[in-house]
Amino acid sequence: MTERDAAGLAALGIDIGGTKVAFALVDADGRELAATRLATEPERGAEAVLGEALAEARAAFGTTLGGADAVGICVAGQVGPGGVVLGAPNLGWDGAPLGEITTRLFARRAVVMNDVHAAAWAEWRGGAGRGVEDLVVLFLGTGVGGAVIVGGRFLRGCTGTLGELGHVTLVAGGRQCHCRNAGCLEAYVSGWAIEARAADAIAADPAAGAGILAAAGGSGGEITAEAVAAARDAGDPLARRLSDETGMYLGAAAVGLVNGWNPCRLILGGGIINGFPELVDATTRAIEAHALPAAARVVTVSRAALGNHAPSIGAALMARDGTA
Amino acid sequence: MTERDAAGLAALGIDIGGTKVAFALVDADGRELAATRLATEPERGAEAVLGEALAEARAAFGTTLGGADAVGICVAGQVGPGGVVLGAPNLGWDGAPLGEITTRLFARRAVVMNDVHAAAWAEWRGGAGRGVEDLVVLFLGTGVGGAVIVGGRFLRGCTGTLGELGHVTLVAGGRQCHCRNAGCLEAYVSGWAIEARAADAIAADPAAGAGILAAAGGSGGEITAEAVAAARDAGDPLARRLSDETGMYLGAAAVGLVNGWNPCRLILGGGIINGFPELVDATTRAIEAHALPAAARVVTVSRAALGNHAPSIGAALMARDGTA
Repeated sequence: MTERDAAGLAALGIDIGGTKVAFALVDADGRELAATRLATEPERGAEAVLGEALAEARAAFGTTLGGADAVGICVAGQVGPGGVVLGAPNLGWDGAPLGEITTRLFARRAVVMNDVHAAAWAEWRGGAGRGVEDLVVLFLGTGVGGAVIVGGRFLRGCTGTLGELGHVTLVAGGRQCHCRNAGCLEAYVSGWAIEARAADAIAADPAAGAGILAAAGGSGGEITAEAVAAARDAGDPLARRLSDETGMYLGAAAVGLVNGWNPCRLILGGGIINGFPELVDATTRAIEAHALPAAARVVTVSRAALGNHAPSIGAALMARDGTA
Repeated sequence: MTERDAAGLAALGIDIGGTKVAFALVDADGRELAATRLATEPERGAEAVLGEALAEARAAFGTTLGGADAVGICVAGQVGPGGVVLGAPNLGWDGAPLGEITTRLFARRAVVMNDVHAAAWAEWRGGAGRGVEDLVVLFLGTGVGGAVIVGGRFLRGCTGTLGELGHVTLVAGGRQCHCRNAGCLEAYVSGWAIEARAADAIAADPAAGAGILAAAGGSGGEITAEAVAAARDAGDPLARRLSDETGMYLGAAAVGLVNGWNPCRLILGGGIINGFPELVDATTRAIEAHALPAAARVVTVSRAALGNHAPSIGAALMARDGTA
C-alpha cells in the first residue's frame, strides 16, 4: 500500500460554472493537494463539457486522477435525485443526467450537488467552520446563498433547498428581488443589489456620484460593486455611505439569523465580503448590540477561509463523505 | 399486567404559568387521557408551587398519577442543564433547580423545558404536524415563539435557543421590539404589537378609532388585540385594515421562513391566530405568490390543533421520549 492508500483515498471535486471549470484534488483529511482550471462553453452540452473536464483532470492529476475514487460535481442550480440538473440558468442544462454522465465518463462513484452547499460543506469540514457543530454560512456574491449545519448535521429541508438565506425577508414591502419576493436580504446586499442601490443613489444626486462613476471608468462605465468598493477605498463619501448601509442591512439580517438559528459560528464569504471586508465587523457589532443575549453570547463571526476554491473542495469532500 | 402497562406507560405534563398550572396525562400513543388546572401564585416559590401541583395531580389522577412514570414541566423561559430555570420573568424563579425539586417531590424521572418547545413538540407528535419530518411551528400570542424540526429532528442550536422566530428581523430599522432588536416579526404581529399598532393608528386618526374603542369598552377601556378582533367582526374599517396589515407582515415573514427553512409544513397557533383566523389564509396566499417555487410547491400551512393544552401535552411527551 502506498502512503496515500494507507491514509484513505483522495477525491476529485469539479465546480462547473458558466465560463470556467475549477478542479480540486483533496486527500483523505480534506486538504487540497492540487487544483486546476479550464475555460468552458456550457452551450456545447453536459456530455462535451464533462468529456473535456475528464481530459483536463487526466492531464493535471494523471490517469489515476490522483488516486481519487470518487468525483463530486457542483453547479449553480438545483439538483434532483440521481444527479439530474433541475435548474441552472448559467449552464442551460435543465434535465441533464449529470450523475449518470459523470459516473460513465469518470468510471467512479459520482455525486452531483449545488455549488453553495458544496462551498459551505468545504468551510465546515476544512475551513472557517472546522470542528463547529452549529453553523450558518452566508455567501455574498452576485446573489446571496447560504447553508446551515445544526447539531453536526448539514440540513436539507423538505426538498433540499433549506438555506436559501438570501431570500429571507429583511424589509417587508421593500425592494423587489429577482425572485418573486420583495425585500429579500439579496435585494440589499448582493452584488446586483449594491449596483442597483448605487445607481439609484447616483440618479438621485448625480454630483455625489462622480467618485463612483470615475471608479467605474467614466460616465460610460458600468456601475459595479467593484467600482463602489474602489471609490470607497479612495475616500468617496457616497461609496462610504453605500458601504455603511450595506453593513446596516447585513447586520440587521444577521441578528435575525442568529436569533432564529442559534449558531455557534456565522461564516461570511463571497466576492462582496472580499470587496467590503468591513462588513464582517459591522455584522459582529450588530449581533453584539441587538441579538438575543443567550444567542449573541456564544456566536462568533468569521470570514470564509477557502475563497473561490471552496465549491470544488466541497464537491470533493461531499463525494468522499457520500452525503450530497 | 394491565392494559395500560402492556401499551407502555403514561406520562404527566405540567405547564406552569404566571397565574395557572395546567396538567395533562397522556398515554403511550400521545393521546391526552385527562387534564386539570390549578390557580397559582409563583411568588410563593418553586417548592411550594410544585408541592401544590403534586397534591392536585394526586387528586385528579390518583395516587399513582394515572400510571405516569415520567413528569415533564414546562415554563415560559430558558431552562439550563439539570432543569435549572435561567430566565422566566412571569415566574421570577431564576436559578430554581426545578428538575431536582420535581424529581424529589414526584419521585419520578423529571424533565424541565421551555413551554414553546413543549407545545411545538406536542403539535409535531400528536397535533397538526403529526408524521411530518420538516416542520416550522410559529405561535402568536402576547409574544411570538417558534420551533423547528428538520429531517425528523427537533433542532436546538448552539445553546438551545434555536427557533426564536419572533425575533427574526422583518423590517430592518423598523418598530422597536421588546428585545434589543428593531423590526422583529414580534414587533408587528404579536398581541402587544397589534395593540401598539392599534394605539398608534387611533392616535393618528381618533375618529377612525371609535369602533375599536367601543369594542374595548369605551374611551377608558384598554386597547387589546381582542378588542381589535371584536371590532373587525363588527365590520369596523380600521380594525379590518389592522388585520390586513398583520396578514401582510406575517405573510412576508412566512415567505422568508419557507425560503430559509424549506419546511414541508408551517403550523400557526396561539391566541392571535384564534382571534384572527384569517391570518392562516393570508399566510398561505403570500407563500403561494412570493416564496421560491421549489419551497412553495411542497409546504402546507396548518392551524395548530391542540390549543392551549399543547404545552402540557408536549411536556408529558417530551418527558416520556426523554429528549428535552
